[in-house]
Amino acid sequence: MSKNRDGGSSQPAEANRNTQSMSGPSDMPSMPYGQMRDQALRNRSIHTQLMEIVLSLRQTVEDNITQLMTRHQPQDLALEKQRHNQAVRDKVAFLGHLMFQMLHYLQSGATGDRSFQLPDTSMDSRVDVRGGQQAQSSRQICQTFYQRSDFEDTLISYDLYNRGIDISALYHSSFQDYTYQGNKYHKDENTLGYINLGTSEKKICIDLLAERLTRTDMLYIDEDLLQYPDWRGQPFLRKEVARFLTSDCKAPAHLDPENVVVLNGCSSVFSALAMVLCDPGEAFLVPTPSYGGFIFSTHLYAKVELVPVHLESQVTEASSYPFQLTVDKLEQALLGAKIEGKKVRGLVLINHQNPLGDIYSQDSVMEYLEFAKKYNLHVIIDEIYMLSVFDEAIPFHSVLSLESLPDPNKTHVIWGTSKGFGISGFRFGTLYTRNREVASAVSSFGYVHSISGVTQYKLCQLLQDREWVDNVYLPIYCFRLEAHRYITDKLKVLKIPFLNRGCGLYVWINLKQYLDPCTFEEELLLHCCFLDNKLILSRGKTFVLNQPGWFRLIFAARPLLLRSAIQRFHQVLVEQGQDWGVKQLEDAKEEVSTSQPAAPASLTLRKS
Amino acid sequence: MSKNRDGGSSQPAEANRNTQSMSGPSDMPSMPYGQMRDQALRNRSIHTQLMEIVLSLRQTVEDNITQLMTRHQPQDLALEKQRHNQAVRDKVAFLGHLMFQMLHYLQSGATGDRSFQLPDTSMDSRVDVRGGQQAQSSRQICQTFYQRSDFEDTLISYDLYNRGIDISALYHSSFQDYTYQGNKYHKDENTLGYINLGTSEKKICIDLLAERLTRTDMLYIDEDLLQYPDWRGQPFLRKEVARFLTSDCKAPAHLDPENVVVLNGCSSVFSALAMVLCDPGEAFLVPTPSYGGFIFSTHLYAKVELVPVHLESQVTEASSYPFQLTVDKLEQALLGAKIEGKKVRGLVLINHQNPLGDIYSQDSVMEYLEFAKKYNLHVIIDEIYMLSVFDEAIPFHSVLSLESLPDPNKTHVIWGTSKGFGISGFRFGTLYTRNREVASAVSSFGYVHSISGVTQYKLCQLLQDREWVDNVYLPIYCFRLEAHRYITDKLKVLKIPFLNRGCGLYVWINLKQYLDPCTFEEELLLHCCFLDNKLILSRGKTFVLNQPGWFRLIFAARPLLLRSAIQRFHQVLVEQGQDWGVKQLEDAKEEVSTSQPAAPASLTLRKS
Repeated sequence: MSKNRDGGSSQPAEANRNTQSMSGPSDMPSMPYGQMRDQALRNRSIHTQLMEIVLSLRQTVEDNITQLMTRHQPQDLALEKQRHNQAVRDKVAFLGHLMFQMLHYLQSGATGDRSFQLPDTSMDSRVDVRGGQQAQSSRQICQTFYQRSDFEDTLISYDLYNRGIDISALYHSSFQDYTYQGNKYHKDENTLGYINLGTSEKKICIDLLAERLTRTDMLYIDEDLLQYPDWRGQPFLRKEVARFLTSDCKAPAHLDPENVVVLNGCSSVFSALAMVLCDPGEAFLVPTPSYGGFIFSTHLYAKVELVPVHLESQVTEASSYPFQLTVDKLEQALLGAKIEGKKVRGLVLINHQNPLGDIYSQDSVMEYLEFAKKYNLHVIIDEIYMLSVFDEAIPFHSVLSLESLPDPNKTHVIWGTSKGFGISGFRFGTLYTRNREVASAVSSFGYVHSISGVTQYKLCQLLQDREWVDNVYLPIYCFRLEAHRYITDKLKVLKIPFLNRGCGLYVWINLKQYLDPCTFEEELLLHCCFLDNKLILSRGKTFVLNQPGWFRLIFAARPLLLRSAIQRFHQVLVEQGQDWGVKQLEDAKEEVSTSQPAAPASLTLRKS
Repeated sequence: MSKNRDGGSSQPAEANRNTQSMSGPSDMPSMPYGQMRDQALRNRSIHTQLMEIVLSLRQTVEDNITQLMTRHQPQDLALEKQRHNQAVRDKVAFLGHLMFQMLHYLQSGATGDRSFQLPDTSMDSRVDVRGGQQAQSSRQICQTFYQRSDFEDTLISYDLYNRGIDISALYHSSFQDYTYQGNKYHKDENTLGYINLGTSEKKICIDLLAERLTRTDMLYIDEDLLQYPDWRGQPFLRKEVARFLTSDCKAPAHLDPENVVVLNGCSSVFSALAMVLCDPGEAFLVPTPSYGGFIFSTHLYAKVELVPVHLESQVTEASSYPFQLTVDKLEQALLGAKIEGKKVRGLVLINHQNPLGDIYSQDSVMEYLEFAKKYNLHVIIDEIYMLSVFDEAIPFHSVLSLESLPDPNKTHVIWGTSKGFGISGFRFGTLYTRNREVASAVSSFGYVHSISGVTQYKLCQLLQDREWVDNVYLPIYCFRLEAHRYITDKLKVLKIPFLNRGCGLYVWINLKQYLDPCTFEEELLLHCCFLDNKLILSRGKTFVLNQPGWFRLIFAARPLLLRSAIQRFHQVLVEQGQDWGVKQLEDAKEEVSTSQPAAPASLTLRKS
């Protein structure tokens, strides 16, 4: 019955250990007194994950029924039929996939084998699957599933080995929500489709980019662009990146193209850094809640542990605003990791913070850098949201703007055009580091992580057109970010607490009041309610937050879409409020029937 | 003095073990009687590698001097000066890099620490660095080198950990030859630059591609192309790939787009397959000589051992033509690997074979597939040279053309446009497999190995323009492959034995007659002589051939370049012949002076 045909489970087990730290509650110090608690929490974690699967299963079955029912509506065009059939096939496939997962779970729980725990990772911004791809992958797994003659068979992969099973499972669990992308909302053609406010994409300016990128200057091709590229990134592009960042980061001196490495996306850059700065099993500190996409890429290759620095939503003595990152917290996390025997090699910062939207002040950044220097840590700082400040009163200071860095050889900046320009489809990520040894080592990864010459050329053309960027693109972008005001006004009306920052593409909202009890299970249930109403948000747990109830909502969408989204959002909360009332009523009734044979009506009223 | 600051060297040591099998002579069975021999061979391998570095060092110093001298020629344009300065800087940087490497070697030799062995990998086709990138990487390492105060410091990397050092060293050693690309030959501007007949690129048709790819139909962009892609490859491209392969492979039925996965290059596809089909330390069989580029990507991530199936250049009882792959040889290699306790999971075939140019007959392919089925092995078959048959008398049968496969679920085909269309800069590689579980698992890698939407669109447009492909591109391509006849005619005149195949972009030539003694050291020396004469070829050792003297020569270049190349080639052989004569003379003299005080002149004459 074991999926591990060679009797060894060390590899996946170790792999899971590496990511487990980012799954919140299961990451406790392994000291004697904590062991039982640790075990209990781990069991709870399995329980939670199992529940997630069951809920998704329920969701899928319900969707299937809905879909079958809506078929009878008078939308009898061939296209509609085709889409419908595809959707049904997707659902069935996904159902099979979920059953497959669940069986694995049950089996791993039953045998005590933890080698198949699905790490709980983000379904966040850069971890996205579009156009029904998830559904197809699911379908494949499903097919394998259905082709097997009995349950035992489903637990054995004949063609993937442990590592392959592990990666495939992590991928599918990470991208689970995006199955729904196969049934995307469209204002004319599919008004009942899913609205995605979960993926951090800037869809409000995509028309501007499409127009700029189809001008004839983009059509140029020379022979060098068609042959093997410079694995480090073409010199012309690295030069332009250095120039662009010099200007936009307000660098005190010209940045050097020799310090630039270009790979296919920021996650590739992060993965390559983790590969060269750490040996397997070593660790980085990551303040959480945090962008979860790095977890997948780290798990895929580098096997570097991401140790969370848990930030608290409450203002306390130790913090003057919610989720404040302080050096004290960093030191505590580092100490905790050291006690557990972990080798911490670096600190990962995202500025602006994702999902909070916080911009670190210049003083704070310096404190974090000094902390890192004190403990001989590398700092990887992701500034991909650099261009997404829309409130001029909020100053953003790139780490590249600092006159002097505490430890320039250990400070590595990641940037890309996926957020600021909204062209995630270009798969462009870049590293800026003064450390030539690190830049050189990361360049090695260009061999399997480079981008095409023609794409590099287009990026170069785009970045060097300052006239268009400054006078066309950025002003229109800022104007369209009125969407932020629209969303926050609605949230105020709905009395939903949120963090009000003047940057990013998202709002970090608090829906604790709709959870009863306030647990991750309830958070997931609420998430499923949104999905029921064809609305995708990102829930706090996928950002490795250790407190339930928070959600990230992308507002950088077009007005019509936002309006529909907020209607659905409101609808869910209304239903949720009603459910809550009913539940309270039932609880009270039960209480009455068990402990107080003749409870006064007032008690019930008071409780509801 | 140890570069391993944490006292542990298991990771790099293990990593090296994984690739060592592909370094030929050091890969002996670990049976008692073989151990001493094994050790001796390993020492010899270190010696050879050390010698390579010393020779490169010599080469670099000489180049530097030459460069400094040529500066005084009346080519005093600003551009020339700039290029000259850049070249000098590159050389100095590379010199520093080589010294850095050598120190590492010496140190690892002195302490018996093998954790820093540089695996000997290919500088082959897809392992290429263009436009001086290697030089820049070298410069960075060099800078680090020079910034350190003493030798001890140079042996410690303060910023990379063991894995990072290991990857960086492998990368730089693999791409060493391509430093010279910074000083490329140009018929007008740099007639003294290096001519590269080492990289498998089809430069004869690049003008056709550049023209086609700049037509206005290539300029189209829609919003979906700019946003997160389907990690498995955009559906429109997968559909077109399936259609193209159906036609070009003469598939008996339409190939299914659901079986297609698109990643950024064939090496990425191979790496992903190795990741999901094997656990670390497990192995694939690879008939050698073989394309060495997979070694780097396998070493980078998958840590899958490539076990060579050594083919012999001699026609023997077991083979009816040179380097024939037989099932007997596969079985022997598999048995040998099993005796050594290796878990072999698959067989890697390249058809057409690179560097031999052999096309496997349909019967042979079936035999290999049956062999794999018998032993429950996956077969990864790379058909990237599919479109490069220029002799119509030679039939090529894609594995996708077979009516039925012995084990379709374990047969995985790799293809791309780098060779057939010569657009390696597009970074396009694709997997075709009927195994949905494998396809799904490989799709997971799209997250860090996808290509940009705009590139996917262009590829789709290109593949679907059958009119252009069939009536413009392929006929002109075949016509221009007259270059093959030009080169082989020259080789005949020079009496150089070579394998005469009607396909591929390369000729596999035998220069054993110029080696005395016939060793890998002498092969390397000859390689250096070519470099001295600004000619880059690929030597047999980089293809993991276990017999010295063979070289791969790319002929798919423009006539003028080929003519200059063959002149340089001839010049080297003439010099080599003279050297050989002088050496024989000296040997004889020595013999005379030590053993025969009064040797007759006739002996000397006879020997020379």
